[in-house]
Order: sequence, then C-alpha cells, then structure tokens
Amino acid sequence: MPRFSKAVSSLRSSEIRDLMTLASRPDIISFAGGMPGNELFPVKEVEELFRELDIKKKQAAFQYGPTPGLPSLLESLNGFLEKKGLPVKENRLLITTGSQQGLNLLGKAFIDPGEPVLVENPCFIGALSAFRSYEAELRGVPVDSDGISMNALHRELERKEKPKFLYITPYFHNPAGLLYTTERKEVLIRALQGSDIPLIEDDAYGDLYFYEEDRERLRPIKAINPSGIDVCYTGSFSKILGPGLRLGWMLVPEEIYGKCELIKQSADACSPSFTQVLADAFIRSGQIYSYVESVRQEYKRRADAMVSALTEYLPDYVQWNKPRGGFYIWLTLPEGADATKIMMLAIEGGAVFVAGKTFDPAGTRNNSLRLSYCNNTPQQIAEGIPIVANSIRKICG
Amino acid sequence: MPRFSKAVSSLRSSEIRDLMTLASRPDIISFAGGMPGNELFPVKEVEELFRELDIKKKQAAFQYGPTPGLPSLLESLNGFLEKKGLPVKENRLLITTGSQQGLNLLGKAFIDPGEPVLVENPCFIGALSAFRSYEAELRGVPVDSDGISMNALHRELERKEKPKFLYITPYFHNPAGLLYTTERKEVLIRALQGSDIPLIEDDAYGDLYFYEEDRERLRPIKAINPSGIDVCYTGSFSKILGPGLRLGWMLVPEEIYGKCELIKQSADACSPSFTQVLADAFIRSGQIYSYVESVRQEYKRRADAMVSALTEYLPDYVQWNKPRGGFYIWLTLPEGADATKIMMLAIEGGAVFVAGKTFDPAGTRNNSLRLSYCNNTPQQIAEGIPIVANSIRKICG
Repeated sequence: MPRFSKAVSSLRSSEIRDLMTLASRPDIISFAGGMPGNELFPVKEVEELFRELDIKKKQAAFQYGPTPGLPSLLESLNGFLEKKGLPVKENRLLITTGSQQGLNLLGKAFIDPGEPVLVENPCFIGALSAFRSYEAELRGVPVDSDGISMNALHRELERKEKPKFLYITPYFHNPAGLLYTTERKEVLIRALQGSDIPLIEDDAYGDLYFYEEDRERLRPIKAINPSGIDVCYTGSFSKILGPGLRLGWMLVPEEIYGKCELIKQSADACSPSFTQVLADAFIRSGQIYSYVESVRQEYKRRADAMVSALTEYLPDYVQWNKPRGGFYIWLTLPEGADATKIMMLAIEGGAVFVAGKTFDPAGTRNNSLRLSYCNNTPQQIAEGIPIVANSIRKICG
Repeated sequence: MPRFSKAVSSLRSSEIRDLMTLASRPDIISFAGGMPGNELFPVKEVEELFRELDIKKKQAAFQYGPTPGLPSLLESLNGFLEKKGLPVKENRLLITTGSQQGLNLLGKAFIDPGEPVLVENPCFIGALSAFRSYEAELRGVPVDSDGISMNALHRELERKEKPKFLYITPYFHNPAGLLYTTERKEVLIRALQGSDIPLIEDDAYGDLYFYEEDRERLRPIKAINPSGIDVCYTGSFSKILGPGLRLGWMLVPEEIYGKCELIKQSADACSPSFTQVLADAFIRSGQIYSYVESVRQEYKRRADAMVSALTEYLPDYVQWNKPRGGFYIWLTLPEGADATKIMMLAIEGGAVFVAGKTFDPAGTRNNSLRLSYCNNTPQQIAEGIPIVANSIRKICG
C-alpha cells in the first residue's frame, strides 16, 4: 500500500467527469460543458497555415522550446495583448499549458498548506481544484450582478490572517455569466491598493462580448494598471482558437514571473511547441481577429435562443440575467432548492447541466445551476430548455 | 512585495538555461542538449497523416479531451506498450504532458516537504527539479557500469526514515549513458520486494538501442512484473516522435493512477489533444516502428563518431563507456577535477557540454561531464571533441 502525500488527500474526485460522460451521450442535450462547439473550430485555416510554414518552423514545432514560450509566439502574443491596452512592456509574459496551468503555477507560487485565499462564490472549478491541490483554505466571497460583493470583501480583508491573493473572473464569469461594472472594478482596486494582496485576474472569455458598447467595461484591471497592486493577468487560446491546443498565458510582474517560470520548468519543461507554432501563425495571419468576430456572432445567436426559451418556460421565481458575452447563464432558485435533484430529473427527461454546489468553494450551496449555450444549436436549445424548466417546476413547485 | 510560498523558495534557477543559450550560438558546437536533431523529425510524414484524417478527428484535435488522454491514443499506445511485454491490462495508462509531467505528478502524489526519496547519482535533472519542487530530501545512490550500486542502496534502505520511492533510469541512463544488466535488475527487484517502496522506472530512451542482442537487457522491470513492488513506469514520445508534442505516459497500478489523474486535472486539465491526435495516427499507421528503426541507426552513427574521436583524443585518465544506445556519454575525470573550469575553457574554444555537478542530487560533485551526440553530425563531432579533450588536458594535466 503506497504511502501518499498529505496534499493528495485534499483532492476530491470531481463530479464533472461523470457529467461529461452523460454529456457525450447522443440522446442527451448537454448544457453542462464549457467547451466551444466542435463545428466552430478553424480547422481548415490552421491546416493551411501550417502547410505554408517553412521547414525550419515545422521542425521547431517538433522540438523542445524555451520554458517561457517560443520567442516568435511571445512576440506576436505581446502584440495581440498590447492591442487590448495591456502593459506588456512593464510585465513578463509566460506561455502556459492552458490557463489551467497558469492558475496552478500561481497557486504553487503563493500557497502553503492551510493558508487562506479569496475566491468568488460561485467560482470557476478549475481554479478551485488548482488552489485545493495546494491545500489552500478557500474563502468564498459572494458576487452580485455588478461583480464581487464589496461588503463581504471588506469583511474578509479585515480578518486577522491575510489571504495570499484574490482570484476573480470579471468578464463573462464562469459560472455566473456576469460582467463586472466599471464602478465595481474601481472600488475593488481601491480596496486592494496597498493591501499586499495580489489580484489574479482571469480573462478567458473577455473577447467573446456581444455588444460593442461594453468595450470599456471589458478593459482589464491589468490594463488600468493601478499602482500598489500586483495584478496577475491570465488568458487562454481555448475560447479564441481551441482548448485542444492547451495554450494559455500569464502577464505578471517580473518577480512573480521568475517564480512561475521555475515552477513551470519542473512541471512540464515547456508548453507544446507544435501548438505554439500554430497559434503564432494564427495571430500573425490576422485570422485570429476575423475568427473571434465570427464566433462572437455565433455565440450571441445561441445565447439569444437560450434567453428566449428561458423567458418562455422558466417559472417566475427563478432569477437569471441575460448574458452580455461568454458561454453561461446562471439560474438562482428559491432558497433551499436542490439543483442536484433537478438535474437527476432533467437527465431522465434528456437534458443535463451543472448543479450550483460544484462551483461553491465550500461545495454545499445548491439552489443554483449553470447552463451553457456554447455547444448547442438554437434548435437543441429550444428542445432542451423546456426539459430543464419542467424539472425545476416539478422539484420547486 | 508578494508573500511567496515556502515551496518555491526551494527551487533554484537552473544553469541549463544559460547553457542552452550558448548551445544555440552557431559558432559553438554543442554537446550540451538532450534534444533530438531537428533534421530527424518526421515532419512530412506527420503532416501527411494529419491531412488524411477525417474532419471529426481534426475537430477533436482542437477540443478538450478526457484528463487521462484521448481514448483512441490510449488504445493505440496500449498496443505499442503491449508489444514491449508491458502488463497493460493489470495497470492503468495515463497520458502526460511530456514525461516531465509524469515525474511531477508522481512527486506530488508521494512527497510531503522534507521527506526522503532515493535517486541515482548522477540523476536526470528533470527528475531532480520535479522532486525538489515538492521539497523532497534527495538521497543520491551511486551507479556503477552495471546499474545502481547495491551496497549503497542497501545502506539507504536500512536507514530509519524510509524513502517514499526509488527513481531510476535503467535504459541508456541520462546522463550516465549506462544500460542496467539483467543481473542488477534482479537483485534490485529482490531488494525492493515487500519493502513498501514504490519504484519509478523511467524508460525514455529504451527504444534507441544500437544492438539487437540487448533486447533482453532492455526488458522493463514493469514487464517482468515482480510481485510486491508498485512499479510506476514512465515513457515519452520525445525521443521517438518529437519533444515539441509534449506527450509522455505513465503505466501504473490503479490506486496510484487515481491520485495522478486527480493531480493532473488540477495541473492542466488534459494533455494537448492536437498532438495526441498526431501521435495516435503515427502509431496506427505503423510508421512509429520504421521511424524508430531509422533514428536508431542514425544515433548509432553519431555515437560511433564520438567514440572514435574520444578514443583518439582523450587522455588515458578519463574513464568512459561506449554507449549501447540513447544520447549520452559520461566522462569521469580524476578525483577533484572541476568540470566547470573545463567547460569555460571549452566554450572559449568553441564547444560546450554539461558539467557533472548539474546531475548530482547534492549539486556538488563535479569531476565528471556529460557529452550528447544526438544533435551533431559526425563532422561536428570530429571537430568538437578535440576542443573538449584539449580543455581537459589543460585543466587536469
């Protein structure tokens, strides 16, 4: 019987795996996954881009690369990020094996076992799992429709043991779907300035906005570049090219970069050169901009279909917001409702989603659920939402 | 000033990075890297294989996959490993993001801060860095030309605090170049049976043998399948397809697999689907076998060139063995010699290698050095080795 480390005992098996098995059944309409639609990937374009590369670049795709990333991709990605107003010159860019690895590296850089970190409630499960793997004490701070709740955050900041960082996903939040207001970001910045608490700003979905008028609200805190806060900005190619490339990035202050580079060296030596070469070509060809524009429109079409089905079928006591971008709609049910029961019933009916407690740092609060529209046609949405709505009515009355 | 975790303070900056910068200078002949020659990669073949895939497979290359690996690759790789006699049915296979990630996952599964682990001395630096990142106490056990020194190992096994595992690279060792004898494997197995100490058997180079007669010696301990030892077998596509794909694997008992899968989920969610699709096609086409056969011959040609140059130019007091496979030749200099000084001199002369202390778990012993022949033409070898030999003579007399 092997003697395992204490750290692994704090890892729990995620229900997500079983859900994904269900989600892949052809007889079930899945609103569970956070994966882009397969039919939306730029397969032909990327294949063509690879074919046109010279032999040196193709060979480099097979070879080890430097731990921080291939120089050519670091250069083109710097350009992409600079267009968003990010302070690339005053920070360092590190390519990560998906943004999941970025969160894991930051977890390892900051967390000793038992130390507290602040996360939103609800929170992205990949972040919860990364921080749990270093035995963090997860302190959840509720969100409202404008962003993280400032009253609750202030209470957390006043506690004796100071948290190692605050992790937020302000732009089309996973799972809550919300977009922080400019005002909420401003008060958040003021609360953190000089507090010695780094901010991890996860911007995996920000490019998928549905309304041009939201551009200002989408300006990252990292781009605002407030003094007195170490902002660790993470991003991903998963939603703007393909998650199967396993490429993300972090843009962070020099000192934090140094630690993360060392951790990455011991984690996987370097991210895949093959997909870095592809991502670099995708940016340099300019196709990344036209591609993102086209998926933005497609996801809006899917979101609109879901909004219209929810408006028609949901009982009045369910609270939810129309999405302004991203992949998700978050339903809040009456106090005490059990989303897992609703889910079991929905599966019988032929539809599946993720129950709220999966995203609760404490793993308990369950009067909520996440619906994804990213991987469904409007027709599937029109078929599946009545099943979800009926299941809610049966359980909640 | 961010408050970093204790774990990261134990990570040190590797000299390897600076060496690699030198190694990429066109005016320096590099015997430093452990990377395959760029001109040897099966670029055209893999591009052709991808082109011929159907659209579903191509789309899956862009999509998330299951954490343990794409089912199709798990199936084809199982077949590849079964041909080596590995007990795939009684174990579980996990695809890792390079075998570096495999070592890191096993490190996390077993090591709590300060706990001892046994490694060979000298030892693969990637393993040292993975185990250091979990604050292991690294206990080095010397190797001789037949394998790990059994006297030294027995002494370690008798110490009060039992090590969490033993890590070895028995087949064309990096950096020592050695191939374990069948006898040494047998006594090692007997020493470990019933000891409750898992064995991590790293077989990244075993396919690159130069002599058919060595096939029996190359039989993995995992394939011998001894009772009473948890053998964790790790392998890699890096040397038999390309390290830029970042794909390795571990074949391990169920219980260890369960832990490693959870850790991997929090580390990077899944390995790159894109390169998994490519590796799967490479195995299924059968090209992996013909390709490995061809690089085996090429690496033997390079090894022969280095052996002949070393025979001609090295002073008699330098000890070394003719390689029977793999990438490396290990030179042992007289007691007290300083390989770093020799390296500085060699760089001035136009050649570079890695000094021995880099591979010493304690980071001190330096009367040795590693030469790689994998990335040089016979002509470069004939030019570079006299520079190394002259530098040795100048420092050691």
